[in-house]
Amino acid sequence: MSRGPKILIIGGVAGGASAAARARRLSESAEIIMVERGPHVSFANCGLPYYVGGEIASRDDLLVSTPAALTARFNLDIRVNTEAVRIEPAAKTVVLRDLVTDREYSEPYDVLILATGAAPVRPPVPGIERPGHFVVRNVPDALAIEEWANRYPGGQAVVIGGGYIGLEMAEQLHRRGMQVSIAEALPQVAAFLDPETAALLHEEIRAHGVGLYLSDAVSAFENARSGERAAASVVVLRSGARLPADLVILAMGVRPEASLARDAGLAIGVTGGIKVDDHLRTSDPAIWAIGDAIEVRHGVTGAPSLLPLAGPANRQGRIVADNILGTPRTYKGSFGTGIMRVFDLVAGSTGANSRALDSAGMQYRAVHLHPSSHAGYYPGACLIAMKLLFDPDTGRVLGAQAVGRDGVDKRIDVLATAIQAGLTVEDVAELELGYAPPFGSAKDPANLAGMIASNHRTGLVSSISPTEVSRRDPNTTVLLDVREPSEWSEGHIAGAIHIPLGEIRARLNELPRDKEIIAYCRSGLRSYYACRILTQNGFRATNVSGAYLTWQAAQQAGC
Amino acid sequence: MSRGPKILIIGGVAGGASAAARARRLSESAEIIMVERGPHVSFANCGLPYYVGGEIASRDDLLVSTPAALTARFNLDIRVNTEAVRIEPAAKTVVLRDLVTDREYSEPYDVLILATGAAPVRPPVPGIERPGHFVVRNVPDALAIEEWANRYPGGQAVVIGGGYIGLEMAEQLHRRGMQVSIAEALPQVAAFLDPETAALLHEEIRAHGVGLYLSDAVSAFENARSGERAAASVVVLRSGARLPADLVILAMGVRPEASLARDAGLAIGVTGGIKVDDHLRTSDPAIWAIGDAIEVRHGVTGAPSLLPLAGPANRQGRIVADNILGTPRTYKGSFGTGIMRVFDLVAGSTGANSRALDSAGMQYRAVHLHPSSHAGYYPGACLIAMKLLFDPDTGRVLGAQAVGRDGVDKRIDVLATAIQAGLTVEDVAELELGYAPPFGSAKDPANLAGMIASNHRTGLVSSISPTEVSRRDPNTTVLLDVREPSEWSEGHIAGAIHIPLGEIRARLNELPRDKEIIAYCRSGLRSYYACRILTQNGFRATNVSGAYLTWQAAQQAGC
Repeated sequence: MSRGPKILIIGGVAGGASAAARARRLSESAEIIMVERGPHVSFANCGLPYYVGGEIASRDDLLVSTPAALTARFNLDIRVNTEAVRIEPAAKTVVLRDLVTDREYSEPYDVLILATGAAPVRPPVPGIERPGHFVVRNVPDALAIEEWANRYPGGQAVVIGGGYIGLEMAEQLHRRGMQVSIAEALPQVAAFLDPETAALLHEEIRAHGVGLYLSDAVSAFENARSGERAAASVVVLRSGARLPADLVILAMGVRPEASLARDAGLAIGVTGGIKVDDHLRTSDPAIWAIGDAIEVRHGVTGAPSLLPLAGPANRQGRIVADNILGTPRTYKGSFGTGIMRVFDLVAGSTGANSRALDSAGMQYRAVHLHPSSHAGYYPGACLIAMKLLFDPDTGRVLGAQAVGRDGVDKRIDVLATAIQAGLTVEDVAELELGYAPPFGSAKDPANLAGMIASNHRTGLVSSISPTEVSRRDPNTTVLLDVREPSEWSEGHIAGAIHIPLGEIRARLNELPRDKEIIAYCRSGLRSYYACRILTQNGFRATNVSGAYLTWQAAQQAGC
Repeated sequence: MSRGPKILIIGGVAGGASAAARARRLSESAEIIMVERGPHVSFANCGLPYYVGGEIASRDDLLVSTPAALTARFNLDIRVNTEAVRIEPAAKTVVLRDLVTDREYSEPYDVLILATGAAPVRPPVPGIERPGHFVVRNVPDALAIEEWANRYPGGQAVVIGGGYIGLEMAEQLHRRGMQVSIAEALPQVAAFLDPETAALLHEEIRAHGVGLYLSDAVSAFENARSGERAAASVVVLRSGARLPADLVILAMGVRPEASLARDAGLAIGVTGGIKVDDHLRTSDPAIWAIGDAIEVRHGVTGAPSLLPLAGPANRQGRIVADNILGTPRTYKGSFGTGIMRVFDLVAGSTGANSRALDSAGMQYRAVHLHPSSHAGYYPGACLIAMKLLFDPDTGRVLGAQAVGRDGVDKRIDVLATAIQAGLTVEDVAELELGYAPPFGSAKDPANLAGMIASNHRTGLVSSISPTEVSRRDPNTTVLLDVREPSEWSEGHIAGAIHIPLGEIRARLNELPRDKEIIAYCRSGLRSYYACRILTQNGFRATNVSGAYLTWQAAQQAGC
């Protein structure tokens, strides 16, 4: 067995640990050192909120593996509580500091892998550093939050930021019995979703008694005034709202830990992430980088992006090991596939959303639908709000979003696979998916999304977004509600006329031939049928994408 | 609006109803007649077992739509209780019989669509036609079964046949409190699964106290002898077993209803299904056929096949309408994607299984794995038994099977999408799927299947099937168990030696260099690591695919 290279890995969680394990499987003779600043390697960072909330009962469960177990299995030299101080690329050494003894020493390498992750953003808001304020990055953070929260049962918690971690923490602190508020600087939570999709989460959050402050950034963390009780601070928002907090979670996003790389003169991308080529190699040929620290190419838009997700980090760890020790492989970009539970709802997305496509200057069309999670005649079916974005010329699927109580993760994963395979909406319409009443429908929600989009492509129907409904010109358009009388009387869009679908053929003479007829029903299916009848009878007719349900969500989102 | 064609559709359930609705959306001016032999159209045939079991509480729920509702919406001429007696292709007429009045009349057509479905097989077993014997095809069948079963609470039910309908009926009759037995002529239930995968269903069925008679066809249905109580018949199996039954379900498969087509001189395929071209047109240019009645091309093997599934039938209905009235489209074949709940287990498959690949003479390799349904550190994770079949040369995914308590449908649908997109195992390894602890793992089960298969393709590891383990030659091979001592002492494969993974590097000298080392652990992951260590140290090592878990299942399957 010839002697293998000496591989030094900075960072021992998702990407770093994956790279180390894969490297050992490829080479028994490599020397593999894995350095981690914290006390644990290979811990369950995505599980931290669930430990705080008590769903994960034991802290031991957060430790997916231990240095001892990893060493026994993979013969690694693991150094926890060890910080990388600086890289000396010319000498091929890294200066390490043992955080327990404070000893500094130089460690030479043949190959260096940077898996330094991303650090929670802490903007310079006055008072941000205080006892009772926490970020959620590692096991000690989770333990500290738990300990602090134990002191304030039923207390007030304020979560700053409505991204993945913020929403998961809000849910879990609520589960602990705390009174929770979320403050978000943007007009919506879950920025990976488009506004009308995110609006469904707003409803769900508020329905659980969690305060939700949108478009309202934090301006300061203050001491409690008289009459206010706040063991941590009073969170002051730009609107002037004062939220007394016994516990504050800072979840305002993360920023790649690129300073080691930057200080060593490695190229940094426009996003602030470490720049790597398609093989995940940095601008120094002996140094590779993976995970949340790097800038990736977005698989749909091609834009340089930061997509700090555990799945890509793990796979990048394997790829980088293969490139160093095995078959050369390329990383094809990240697609931003994500899934999240928010109370009883699940929200997922994959590919590009409207904002990402707009900033990339890509043309797209979107369709909205509200299919049943499984066959409507089998108990427990519930609606999924879906949005599919596609290229109107080529039909290629560009993005998908879904929110619902059940079956969301499956449809997102199917559409993620479709996007990564380069499928068109026509392909998706034809996908043969598993159907039995408890699991789906003969036309699966994914199929339906493809069918609706493909009807647009062939010109069978045209549609406008619910947002455009409010902007319509009553002189040139008429709004037509084709639902049943009982639905109409429960609420409808102001200014609409009402003819149920089943009566349209007989009441064509009530409709104007000189105006565009904008039709809607509850979800968009019946109004599509109506549009077909109208168009073939010489009317100009357009469907409202996602119809009344999406229109309501868009209204709530203020868009 | 120019006058459209006169379209006559024989059969008003999945494919027929889809074709009718799509045709109307494409043409307001077509004359569309839909003829159905039974009293209902567009009913929930896949829901029938769940109505019998009481999960679907109301018979009205089985009627997805009614003739009146369909007519109002789609302006159809629907004729229920009407049988097609014969087609006269030269005259372009069909002779119809009104089953209520017995009146026969000729109906001319411009275009004819055959959506005649498939009928339950009733082999000429003595005594098969008796009161208390039922097939499960339509709503009247379900109502009759319910009524009969109501008379025998806690009685004995025997289900003949262990396919989709047989297993669903067995589960639902058990749910009603009946004592259920299943008799299956093959050595396994669920013939779409390979034997070692189906074995897990055998366990589950027996664990619920349901009798399971495998490789045991029915030889007769007899009257009860003295001492036997059987309101329906005594089911006599070839083995001699006598199963007294108050209720018998005949679920021995279905056969395409092709007699109308055959009598009209239309081409019939080798499988007995109506032969159609890629546009779903029969050998008569004015006649099209869809659904369970037709022979399809298998999307993976290309073999002429019968795949009576609701999803394909519905999509074929759309395609045929498009071909008649809109954009010409082709049907790309069926992939046999199916999902089924059997008590607390879910079993799914997509693409080709071993038998299908063997009969098509296609080369393939298979890997077995047992990943967690979601992150192991989050509560409720359970193992999924997966099998992935792929082309060793091209890497193309050919088939997948999965059995487990949770998350099976999602992985089957992802792999179904991958197969239909022509993805390789390397592509599947790299799929970016949604990950949060309640839903999956950073390396999703689908990813893991792709990774294992791709490790085989690059030669990183070789494996043998558990079946080959029993046939190994002890003179040239040694069997190595690398699990922990506690696992070993709970049971192991006879003849194995035992070195836990963590000790292998230190105990290499205990292993022979002149024999092939066949390694196994519980699921195949640790023994893969062991193989990597051994191979790099100059040993010849092979992994057992799916390891101890799959070996146990294969033993139970007798393969």
